[in-house]
Amino acid sequence: MAGKVFFSVSMSLDGYIAPEAGGDEPGGKGWMEQWMELQQWIFPQRFFRENLKLGEGGEEGRDNDLLRETFERTGVSVMGKRMFDFGAQAWPEEAPFHTPVYVVTHEKRDPWERPGGTTFHFVNDGIESALDQARAAAGDRDVRIAGGGTTILEYVNAGLVDEFTIALSPVVFGSGIRLFEGVDATRVALEQIRSEPTSRVTHLTYAVRRR
Amino acid sequence: MAGKVFFSVSMSLDGYIAPEAGGDEPGGKGWMEQWMELQQWIFPQRFFRENLKLGEGGEEGRDNDLLRETFERTGVSVMGKRMFDFGAQAWPEEAPFHTPVYVVTHEKRDPWERPGGTTFHFVNDGIESALDQARAAAGDRDVRIAGGGTTILEYVNAGLVDEFTIALSPVVFGSGIRLFEGVDATRVALEQIRSEPTSRVTHLTYAVRRR
Repeated sequence: MAGKVFFSVSMSLDGYIAPEAGGDEPGGKGWMEQWMELQQWIFPQRFFRENLKLGEGGEEGRDNDLLRETFERTGVSVMGKRMFDFGAQAWPEEAPFHTPVYVVTHEKRDPWERPGGTTFHFVNDGIESALDQARAAAGDRDVRIAGGGTTILEYVNAGLVDEFTIALSPVVFGSGIRLFEGVDATRVALEQIRSEPTSRVTHLTYAVRRR
Repeated sequence: MAGKVFFSVSMSLDGYIAPEAGGDEPGGKGWMEQWMELQQWIFPQRFFRENLKLGEGGEEGRDNDLLRETFERTGVSVMGKRMFDFGAQAWPEEAPFHTPVYVVTHEKRDPWERPGGTTFHFVNDGIESALDQARAAAGDRDVRIAGGGTTILEYVNAGLVDEFTIALSPVVFGSGIRLFEGVDATRVALEQIRSEPTSRVTHLTYAVRRR
């Protein structure tokens, strides 16, 4: 049986998945502070620390279980060019995917193999082709649309996402990159599948239906 | 002990509490359809039907309990002029508040008493004055900032809201009136107090803290 296509992000209560990228100092203090607040439920988790080789220990509650489950279900990730460019500077040499990753880009480039099982493949003919290749490589595991926001929304509006999870963080941004900016509300209907609060966030899962 | 100041709204997953108001036909089909989707968890509830005199019967689960609890904790409501003008046409003669209601407006007008215990008072000297009067009238019950979105956010940004609840509906709008448009993110911090899913929505409760 083929796997599902999903995405999984942390979102502020006012709908943002990242702070405003603009300005002359993208790694500056305001940006990083907001980003850390949004993601702060992740950093103490044992799985996150293990996977990024940040050391032993960490929390092992439901937040940790859900991070691990998301990782384990993912046979392949798909991402946009901007996320790749940003991540290529941010990830450790042993990139945290440990699977094939398909990057949707205009850049022609040979596959880039990293230690630990992550290989980046560069796809030049659009999101559907990238997804086809990702599905084939994922086998019976799921395909994660990893980001960024623009790429996720392209897949949503194209009707190619089966379900998604949002870790809704108790924070407001006021500005930034909105997950659903430009969503085709005339075609996208949602069904609430699960909703599970932890002490830090609420984990929401929705199935995407076509209207 | 004085009560709390709170608001309680239904919000789409992309952060909207009402469809776009503009256009020549505010009560037209698109507007009303979106509104109904956002609020559809409310309509089958027994308390809603009773309070608006729509007839006997209705559901009696957690959604209903939460509607009733929100009503019962509310000693006084505060609202903006636009919400009042809209509601004055929409509510039945026996308006659904059954308490004093303070309307923030530039219009000078005598109190307007309705059957069933609702009296509208028109306050001309700003949101803080309206809240002071509302607190005095509410006694030990809570003050609800009823709406609309602009009025709610004025109170939030002024640091006058203690907590709020959101019924997060499984729907995306793509456009409309955003709850947190213009929120002062440098001053507003949130704490997730409760998060409770039902089959229809997720009921979220946050305390508002000052940074």
